[in-house]
Order: sequence, then C-alpha cells, then structure tokens
Amino acid sequence: MLTLVTGAGGFIGRAVVEALARRLGPDERLRLADLTPFDAGGHERSTGDLADPERLDATLAGADRVIHLAALPGGASEAAPAASRRTNLDATLAMIERLAARERPVRLVYASSIAVLGDVLPVAGVDDSTPPRPAMTYGAHKLMAETALADFTRRGRIEGVALRLPGVVARPPGPSGLKSAFMSALFQALRDRQPMTLPVGPDATFWLISADAAADALVHGLDLPRAPDRALTLPALRVRADDLVAAVAARCGAPVDLVAYAPDPTIEVQFGRLPPLATPLADALGFRHDGDLERLVTRALARLEGTSS
Amino acid sequence: MLTLVTGAGGFIGRAVVEALARRLGPDERLRLADLTPFDAGGHERSTGDLADPERLDATLAGADRVIHLAALPGGASEAAPAASRRTNLDATLAMIERLAARERPVRLVYASSIAVLGDVLPVAGVDDSTPPRPAMTYGAHKLMAETALADFTRRGRIEGVALRLPGVVARPPGPSGLKSAFMSALFQALRDRQPMTLPVGPDATFWLISADAAADALVHGLDLPRAPDRALTLPALRVRADDLVAAVAARCGAPVDLVAYAPDPTIEVQFGRLPPLATPLADALGFRHDGDLERLVTRALARLEGTSS
Repeated sequence: MLTLVTGAGGFIGRAVVEALARRLGPDERLRLADLTPFDAGGHERSTGDLADPERLDATLAGADRVIHLAALPGGASEAAPAASRRTNLDATLAMIERLAARERPVRLVYASSIAVLGDVLPVAGVDDSTPPRPAMTYGAHKLMAETALADFTRRGRIEGVALRLPGVVARPPGPSGLKSAFMSALFQALRDRQPMTLPVGPDATFWLISADAAADALVHGLDLPRAPDRALTLPALRVRADDLVAAVAARCGAPVDLVAYAPDPTIEVQFGRLPPLATPLADALGFRHDGDLERLVTRALARLEGTSS
Repeated sequence: MLTLVTGAGGFIGRAVVEALARRLGPDERLRLADLTPFDAGGHERSTGDLADPERLDATLAGADRVIHLAALPGGASEAAPAASRRTNLDATLAMIERLAARERPVRLVYASSIAVLGDVLPVAGVDDSTPPRPAMTYGAHKLMAETALADFTRRGRIEGVALRLPGVVARPPGPSGLKSAFMSALFQALRDRQPMTLPVGPDATFWLISADAAADALVHGLDLPRAPDRALTLPALRVRADDLVAAVAARCGAPVDLVAYAPDPTIEVQFGRLPPLATPLADALGFRHDGDLERLVTRALARLEGTSS
C-alpha cells in the first residue's frame, strides 16, 4: 500500500506525514512530493512541479491513495492568476484524469478551502447548503477542482474526498503567500513577547483549527468507507480575535497589550467576518475540530517550537 | 460595433441571430460562428472548432461583445466526457482568457444551463441561493466555466453575464445530443398527429421557455448596464407534462390520447422533477419567461414550421 502526499514539505503536509507515519503498517509506504527538496525523513521523495506531465506521472506511479495538498496559496494566486490556474486548476485536473484512467477507483483526498465560500456569507451562519461564491482566484480554482472531483466520483472513476480547510494555525514565520498569515504571526509574536499589530479589530471572528486537527481530518478522509457525494466543509472553532489573543497570551505568559488592532477593511472582510459555522455532513462522518480554544492554542504553539522569528 | 454569436447555426443560435438582426443599427455587424457550415444570411461567418486556438483567435478578432452558445449538449457530454472538457470547459476558458487580455473589458454573455443545479433539488423550491450540485458532466463543466467567468468579472478583466437556460422548446426533429429531446418531440408529434410516448409520467414537471424567450434573454444580457456578480438562473414557466400535452394538442387540434406515458426513472429524475422556481435576481434585472403556457406553445410551434419529422 503506497500513500502519496503532495505538498508534503509544507506546513500542513509535515503534520500529515507525521500522522500517517505514526500508524504505518509493515506493508505500507509513503511517497512524499513537493516542488522543492525537503527532508523526507527516510520516506520516498518526489521533487518537482506537478504541472509538468512527466513529473505528475512519475509522482502518481503506483500510488494506491493520495492526499493532494500541493497548491499556490491565496495571496500568491491573487497576484498571479495564470500561475494559480496552472498549479491549482490544471495540475489538479490532470491528476484527477490520470487517476481516473486506472482500472480501480483511487481514493483522492483533496485539500480544498473555505475560500470557495467567498466573503459575502449569511450573517445567520454558514452550513452545508450555503452556495459557494469565491471572492478570490484561489477560491475559484479550488471550487472548479471540487466540481471536477465530484463529477469523476459520481461517474465511479475515482473516490474523491474534497475537504474545505478553515484557517490553520500556527504556521512557522516567513513568507507563506497567504493573506491570512497574520493569524499565525500572532502566535509567534506572543511566544517571543514581541509587539504586533493585527489587521483586524478585537471583535473579528475566525474559523480555526490546528495543523494537527487538519492532518487528522485529511487522514480520516483516506479512511472513510465511501466517498461523500459533495465537498465537505470541515468543522472549525469560531474564535473572536480578542479571545484568541487572551488565550495565546495566557499560555505564553505574555501580556495581552503586546497586541494592537489596526483593522484593514479588505483583510477584515476576507478573513475576519466569519459567521457561525455548522458542518453536519462532516460531523456525521467523524470529522472533528480541536475541541476547545485551549487545546487549539496548545497544539498550535507546540508546532511553533523549534522555529524562530 | 461587432457582435459575435457562437453556436449561431444551432436552434437557439438562429433565434438569437434573428433577434439581433431585427435591431441592427447602421454601424453594427454580426459575426456568426459555428462548428460546421450554415446559412449566415449575409452576415459574416466563421466556421470551425473553437477548441483550436487559431480558430478561436480568428473568431474573436475585433469582436466588441460576444454571446457564447457553442457547446456539446448534455447527452453527448455524458457519453464523451473528454470531448465535453475540450468544448464546454477548455474552449470556454480559453475564450475568457483571450478576451480578458484586452485593454477594455468585453461583455461576454455565456449560455449556462439549469444542469448546473443537478437533480437533488429542494422540494420546497429552487431560488437564487440554491447551491449548484451538477449531476451530469455537462452541468459540471458549465458550472466550472461559470466560476471562471465570475472570477474574471470580479477582477474587472471581463464583463461576464452567465445565464442558466431552462428547457428550450421546440427544437427541430433529428439527433440533438440532448437527453431532454422528448420535450421537443412532443410538439412535433402532436403537430403531425402522430402517436408518441413520453418517458415521464403525466405529473412530471418541467421548467420551459421558448427559443424566442431564450433569445430575448441572451440579447438582454448584452444590454445590462452592469455585469451581475453571479450567474443568473433565468425565469421559466413550470409546467406539468399533462398540462403541456393538453395545451399543445388544443393548439394543433390533435387528440391528447396520441400521447402515452411510460416513465423512465432516470429521465424523470433528471428532467421531470423540477420544483417551484423563484428567480428574483434575474427578474429584477428584467429577464422574462414567455408569460403563460399558451404563448409558450404558440411560439414553440411557430419555430417548428418549415421543419418535418
């Protein structure tokens, strides 16, 4: 049994590889793919651009199931829509089509994003029947890939499981191409007792999970007995900015007044106005968020250990 | 002012060309494109496959606005998904990207379809907030193109107007590649006083407009002062099968018992279980269906004149 993870060198990818490695059976192998070289920890490694057909074929060869994380992030996609099309749409469609040509349908867990939902969300709350209306090119391409995956799954050619990830914290410092990077920067700043300014107000609301919870969800996607008939929005904790600041500060023993608020209306609309979230479909299939804010913060800070700002 | 119509040789295309030609100003020209040669009635003609980049460029050259009807229909797409991807997805994305490269945003009216909505519709009714869940490859590709069009429109690179067409009657006899061809065949049979069997029950419900109403809607899409921020489901008459049979029979002076009912569950689920439809967004923008069943039937039969079964 060979499990392929694309984007395996990234922040979520590394957590997925850890989760998979913990339960690896004697006849099971991992193949870890990413654009650039990374430490594959003794697992098989595939380095290169999946938009290159030869690289894609070599990466997929013999894989029995796939977690597809590789993507150009939201901010970078908005700045370069053609690059987003190549990586986030064309390469994903090519992967689906290659796998669909196999005799037996392959389980493909696809990391989609709440970016498919857009930024005009019902104030009363989002649930599984909220129509997606992407407000960024990243979300548009993710939605197009979700649509193709659902169609190949309907045709019985693949077992697609599209999971819409909420904000995942806390990423390591450095350029990520994410417009929502400030959420992770908050954890870094309070850990290092450095002042920081959030581009949202104290009453901003986020949907968050830890990288560990995201990894558990993606691995759970491999285990589902049947592919669901539509993309699943994953459960997430809905957290106010000031509550998040207080929880992270308390855990780090840092004063909350290190954090200032200077709301940027564009950022706030895109990332800081998340209404209540109900995810009955994902809940019923056993997907879980971190449980409570304290656990989320503890896990997020643990992932930051060993990194420096 | 050069207006391009793709799929201009088809059933809806011909009605669009008539509607445009009626109001053509002195400095206005039409370019009519289709896959195979057809009578362009003195207008400029472009023949060939828009999936061919050179043909696409030649067809788009100098066009100030576009109505894009060319498509592989639903039944043919389901039988040949790769051909649907080429025509319904790739060629449409290429058209959007070519037009988006222009200095000024071009108005592109895109003929989408209620097939994007799928076949698991809320019994209480469909409205503008019903999430699309295509149940055929045709609908999946139309939805992907809608998503791309909305994103380029949001970016200000194009003025996209995606209009979801309901069932359009009455097409001329002959192979159409449409799984819903029985709706048009009903008109032909009663006009010719021939017996026919519908693959749905008398209580089946359809959403219908005439080709004239469809053409009016597409031309109205050119005239909208601003591109809407999402795809629009067009208003349609919701009609029961037995009411439609009675209206067509009365208009033709034919007995209703020429029509038998032999429901095919697959067909009935896909085309014959349409719940109440509300289209407030399109209504507010001035889109209209035929008004009443009698008018729909009169117009549909008029389009059949000059054809034979």
